Amino acid sequence: MSLPKPYLVRTGLDEILDGLHEGDAFPPERELAARFQVARETVRQAVHELLVEGRIERRGRGTVVSRPKLVQPLSLQSYTEGAQRMGRTPGRLLVTWEDTTVEPETAAALDVSPWDRVMHLERVLLADGVRIGLESTYLPRHRFADLADDFDPTTSLYAALRARGVVFGHATERIETVLPSPREAALLESTTAMPMLLLNRRSVDTGGAPIEVVRALYRGDRVAFEATLTDR
Amino acid sequence: MSLPKPYLVRTGLDEILDGLHEGDAFPPERELAARFQVARETVRQAVHELLVEGRIERRGRGTVVSRPKLVQPLSLQSYTEGAQRMGRTPGRLLVTWEDTTVEPETAAALDVSPWDRVMHLERVLLADGVRIGLESTYLPRHRFADLADDFDPTTSLYAALRARGVVFGHATERIETVLPSPREAALLESTTAMPMLLLNRRSVDTGGAPIEVVRALYRGDRVAFEATLTDR
Repeated sequence: MSLPKPYLVRTGLDEILDGLHEGDAFPPERELAARFQVARETVRQAVHELLVEGRIERRGRGTVVSRPKLVQPLSLQSYTEGAQRMGRTPGRLLVTWEDTTVEPETAAALDVSPWDRVMHLERVLLADGVRIGLESTYLPRHRFADLADDFDPTTSLYAALRARGVVFGHATERIETVLPSPREAALLESTTAMPMLLLNRRSVDTGGAPIEVVRALYRGDRVAFEATLTDR
Repeated sequence: MSLPKPYLVRTGLDEILDGLHEGDAFPPERELAARFQVARETVRQAVHELLVEGRIERRGRGTVVSRPKLVQPLSLQSYTEGAQRMGRTPGRLLVTWEDTTVEPETAAALDVSPWDRVMHLERVLLADGVRIGLESTYLPRHRFADLADDFDPTTSLYAALRARGVVFGHATERIETVLPSPREAALLESTTAMPMLLLNRRSVDTGGAPIEVVRALYRGDRVAFEATLTDR
């Protein structure tokens, strides 16, 4: 029986990866095409799959074996706790911090009027200095206006909110896959062809009052989510 | 202030979509390029984003406004219950049903020896007859060998297992985004450029004994996941 070429190539690449370690050079496409005796295009498709899966990454002119993905637990923990659990050092770059008006849907989710100004915090999420996500958080301004006094936007927002006595009750999250806009791709040092995980979250406190609405984009090649489910 | 063209085009397309309903024709690229006075390539990128987001879809030679995504709760419910909650009729097509050996990792997750044969069930998941996912389920054969006697693979596996007295305890799930292989893309009537949501699940019963290991691929343009998180 003759197996389809894309399958053979992918199996061959998986075997090569099994023998390599993080940071090792990955063979160039022309060498792989010669080794498997297939068209360059067949190799390119398989290599692109590996790039999107985050098993390999471009570095300078070459390609190297990636670090394992950062696995973020789906929980009310902050990004900081998730990253630290994986032994990675979390960091954040501030992109935007503004008071703004939002779409009626977001205003309703925050329980404010559509003409009320909302605090918007946009940050790039880092793990060991590498850009892995872009997070936009919207907060009801009347409730958290004093954040402007002393919050350092390169640190955990959840820690700052908890220090103010906010107790998270529950959150609803929606997870999808999308392609980034050119602006988002640039901020994430990626391309508009790289699938991202999009997470939309709304958190409320134990009294049911809205804390935040979040739109977070995570690089699909660098992040996975994990959940533990139990029966109701 | 002049805003970047990709942003203006995307905002313009969102406005067009706001005025259209499910199944309505979406304007062709050349018409959009003329309307926004931008290069065809700028429109193509924005249209591709909308296709991946599942807001529009190709139908024949044209493009139409899509149905909303099927939102699957992250829970121990079956696919059937998730689809019905959204008012969609679930269905399944059997692709593979075999006894096979699996990789050592999968064998360990099922608590069987690497040389034990495992039951493998591969099915295309349908919602109202549309292909939305491809699910590979691996079951410990010694425990469920009698499924072969009376299980109809176009129906709910969870219902059949529960009817056998299996009680689900908990499951761990990992969610990623990947590109499909050519075979997977063909089975999902999609392309190798369409990002998919990949869900890996391991379920155990209330006694901690493994029930299944699942690798499910969902079309990113047709499915979203939803979770409700509460504090521990």
